[in-house]
Amino acid sequence: MNLENELAPEVSTMRWIGGTDGHLKMIDQTLLPTEFREIDCHDVETVWEAIKKLRVRGAPAIGIAAAYGVVLGLQLGTGSERIDFNQRLTEVSTYLAESRPTAVNLFWALDRLGQLAANSQQLTNSEMHARLLEEAQLIEREDLEMCQKIGEVGAALLSKGDGVLTHCNAGGLATSGGGTALAVFFEAARQGKAIHVYADETRPLLQGARLTTWELMQREIPVTLICDSMAGWVMQEEKIQAVVTGADRIAANGDAANKIGTYSVALLASLHDIPFYIAAPSSTFDLSLESGTQIPIEERLAEEVTHGFGKQTAPEGVEVYNPAFDVTPAKYITGIITERGLIQPVTTAEVLRVLSSDPD
Amino acid sequence: MNLENELAPEVSTMRWIGGTDGHLKMIDQTLLPTEFREIDCHDVETVWEAIKKLRVRGAPAIGIAAAYGVVLGLQLGTGSERIDFNQRLTEVSTYLAESRPTAVNLFWALDRLGQLAANSQQLTNSEMHARLLEEAQLIEREDLEMCQKIGEVGAALLSKGDGVLTHCNAGGLATSGGGTALAVFFEAARQGKAIHVYADETRPLLQGARLTTWELMQREIPVTLICDSMAGWVMQEEKIQAVVTGADRIAANGDAANKIGTYSVALLASLHDIPFYIAAPSSTFDLSLESGTQIPIEERLAEEVTHGFGKQTAPEGVEVYNPAFDVTPAKYITGIITERGLIQPVTTAEVLRVLSSDPD
Repeated sequence: MNLENELAPEVSTMRWIGGTDGHLKMIDQTLLPTEFREIDCHDVETVWEAIKKLRVRGAPAIGIAAAYGVVLGLQLGTGSERIDFNQRLTEVSTYLAESRPTAVNLFWALDRLGQLAANSQQLTNSEMHARLLEEAQLIEREDLEMCQKIGEVGAALLSKGDGVLTHCNAGGLATSGGGTALAVFFEAARQGKAIHVYADETRPLLQGARLTTWELMQREIPVTLICDSMAGWVMQEEKIQAVVTGADRIAANGDAANKIGTYSVALLASLHDIPFYIAAPSSTFDLSLESGTQIPIEERLAEEVTHGFGKQTAPEGVEVYNPAFDVTPAKYITGIITERGLIQPVTTAEVLRVLSSDPD
Repeated sequence: MNLENELAPEVSTMRWIGGTDGHLKMIDQTLLPTEFREIDCHDVETVWEAIKKLRVRGAPAIGIAAAYGVVLGLQLGTGSERIDFNQRLTEVSTYLAESRPTAVNLFWALDRLGQLAANSQQLTNSEMHARLLEEAQLIEREDLEMCQKIGEVGAALLSKGDGVLTHCNAGGLATSGGGTALAVFFEAARQGKAIHVYADETRPLLQGARLTTWELMQREIPVTLICDSMAGWVMQEEKIQAVVTGADRIAANGDAANKIGTYSVALLASLHDIPFYIAAPSSTFDLSLESGTQIPIEERLAEEVTHGFGKQTAPEGVEVYNPAFDVTPAKYITGIITERGLIQPVTTAEVLRVLSSDPD
C-alpha cells in the first residue's frame, strides 16, 4: 500500500464526527507504518482501550481523546437527572484516568471538563453535554495552535543544514496538529532550513521507526532511521547539531519524563556539547511536582521486549525490566520549547516566568 | 523445547569431528534462543556462509571457525602438487578473509596457519594438512585456557552482590570456552560473588536478548534483560556497579571497536562514575593501528533494522544507517581484561607492557 501520495498532508490523528450523539474517529497507530486504518469509537470503553493499547499516544493526543471520551461516556446520561449526570461524569473521568496513569495531559483534560461542569450547574443535562463537546473541540483547536507556536519557537533554534536527532514520536500523531518536536522540524523545513532528521527507532515499541519516519516521509523531510544504540555514535561522527524530543510530564524545576531512552540521549548530547531541547506544551508541566524524583515511572509488560514483533526473541521465562519512561534532569536540558516561548536556562524561576507569560 | 536441563554445561560452540577428512559441527546461533540446531560444515563455503550470516560470531569463535575452514578448504588439495597446495591455501585464506572484514581474529588465525605452512615446506601435502589441523585444534585449546584466565583476572574486579551490565554477547558462544565478558561473570559466580547481570538486548541483531540471557540462564546466573535505551537509566537507578563488554578489535592505544552501542554505554558509565571494562584476548589487539580512528567500520543491511523481528517495522524505502560497530576511546575504558593480565590505565605503554609479559 502506498500511503505517501494518498494521505499527506490531510492525515488527521483524530476527529469528532457529528454532534453530541456523534463519535470519535482515530488512526490506529499500532498498525502504522504498514497499514493505515481508522477506528470508530462509539463508547468510552473503546477510547479507554485505545489509550491503554497505545492506538492513540503522545501527551496532547491522549488529552484530546480523553475529553472526547468524556462526551461519549455521557451519551448515556443526558436523559437522566442532574445528580446522575454529575455522578456519571465522575465515573467516566475516574475510569479514563486509569487508562494511562503517567500521562499528565489526561488528568489535565479531565479536570478541565470537570471544572467546567462544576461551574455550569444551571444548564440542563443536554445543554451541559453540548457545552462539554464544545470544550473538547476547543481543547483540540488550542492544540493545533499550540503546535504551530511550538514549531515557530523551536525552528528559530535550528540552522540551515543541521542534523537533528529525535527519540520516540512527538509528531502530529501525538497531537491534533503538527506535533511538538516534529512541529519544530516541519516549521524549520518550511522555512527552507534543509535539516536532516535522525530518528531513534525507540525500543521496545518502535514509535520512532514506525511513526516518526512515516510522518517525516509524508512531508518529504529527509530522515535516517537508526537504532537507539547508535545515537551516541552519530553524535561522535558529528552528524548531529541538535536534539529535540517531546515530554510526557515536566516538573516545576524542568526535570522531564519522556520515553525510556531520552535520559541516555540527553547525557550523550551533553558529553558531545550538542544542545538538547524538549518541545512540549505548557499543559505538560505539573507544577505540583517540585522535581522529577516525584514522577512515578510506569513499568510495562515483559512481552513488549521479548515478543516485540510477532516473534519470540529471548528465552522463555527470562526476567525483563521494562520501564516506559525515564526522567531527564533539568541540568541536561538546554531549553524547553513551549507555545509560550523558550525556557532557557531550565530553572524553576524560568519555568514559572515563561509559563505565566501571556501567549501572543 | 526445554533447553535448560538438556544442554548445560556441555554446550559447545563448535567442534571438529574426525581427522583431516573430518568436518566442523557448530551451533547455528541465528536460531537461538527458541531453537537449538547444529550445522555440519563439510566445505569451506559453508564456513564462509556461517561467518558471514553470523551463525558463528564473536571474535575468538570466528578465528577458530576460520582455522577449521582452512582445513576443510584444503581437503581438495592434499592429492595435488606442493605448488597447488600452497596456492589453494592462499585462495582459501583470501576467500575466508572476505567473510567478515572487521574481525581481526579472522586475519590472525589465517596468518598463523599461513606462517606455519610457509615454515613447513619440507612436509608432504598430507603431512602439512595434518599439521594445519593440529594448529587449528591448538588455537581452540589455547582459546579455552584464555577464557579461563580472563575469567580469573576479571572476577577479581567484581564485589559480592554487584549489578553488572553487558552489551552484545561476549560469551561462551563467542569463543570455544566460557567467553570473555561472560567468563568474568561465570568465574565471579563460581567464586560465590552473587552478581546480577543486566543484559542489553543489543539491536539490531539482538545478540544480548537471544544469546547472553540464554547462556546466563543455562548457568543459573541471575540475569535481567533490558532494551539498549534503558542502560543509562539502570545506571541512574544505581543498579549497576560495573560494565564488562567484549571487543572485536583493539588499537595499540587501547581504543576498542565493539558492537554498535558500546560507545554509548561506555560514555554513560563514565558519567555515572561506574567502571567500564573490556574483556578480550591479546589476539584482539591490532598493534599496527596506532588508534581507533584507523579501524574501518562495517555498515550492514538496512533490513536488519527495518525487518528485524520477522515483521516490517518501518516504512517501505526509509533510509537507514546501520554501522555494525563503534569505537570506544581508551579514555572511557577503565581497564582491559586480558589473559595476560589487566591493562590499567589504558595507555599505549601499558598495553605494550601487559601484552609483552609472559602469561602465567
